[in-house]
Amino acid sequence: MIHKYQAHIYVTLRPSVLDPAGVAVESGLKQLGYDNVEQVRIGKYIDLMISAANEETARQQLDSICDQLLANPVIENYRFDLVEVAALMGASS
Amino acid sequence: MIHKYQAHIYVTLRPSVLDPAGVAVESGLKQLGYDNVEQVRIGKYIDLMISAANEETARQQLDSICDQLLANPVIENYRFDLVEVAALMGASS
Repeated sequence: MIHKYQAHIYVTLRPSVLDPAGVAVESGLKQLGYDNVEQVRIGKYIDLMISAANEETARQQLDSICDQLLANPVIENYRFDLVEVAALMGASS
Repeated sequence: MIHKYQAHIYVTLRPSVLDPAGVAVESGLKQLGYDNVEQVRIGKYIDLMISAANEETARQQLDSICDQLLANPVIENYRFDLVEVAALMGASS
């Protein structure tokens, strides 16, 4: 049985890391008149579908994927949500 | 009374819009051996703090902010979550 999961991955800069893009957006917002906005931080949001034998395997693979490709662990944190969307009969892996 | 809200904003490409960065990530993952991943789409994730008289006002302002600066409504969708983090006594605005 193969399960298919929708993953939502959030990659954010670590709090101690400067975020020039966030500072630029905040300054742009102030110029547009939004003085009530602060602490703007910009990160990445990644959606993907992953197939795995069970949720535990999917989570382990997503951890490796984030560490290897999606996030830079030196300056970024990540977290993800998994939602099962389908269970398919097939070769077990 | 001024309420302070933490907003999490998700900006994603519309489904009909090609996502070359997502395709590149998917191809990179396959090269790393992750053949069980598909439909990779990359968006932006923005955290900010907004102060407003009430949640309705905060939501309206966030809608304008997203339309004007954070998202390109021609090719992108956005959605956001609001969480109240503090209520401060002060000049009403």
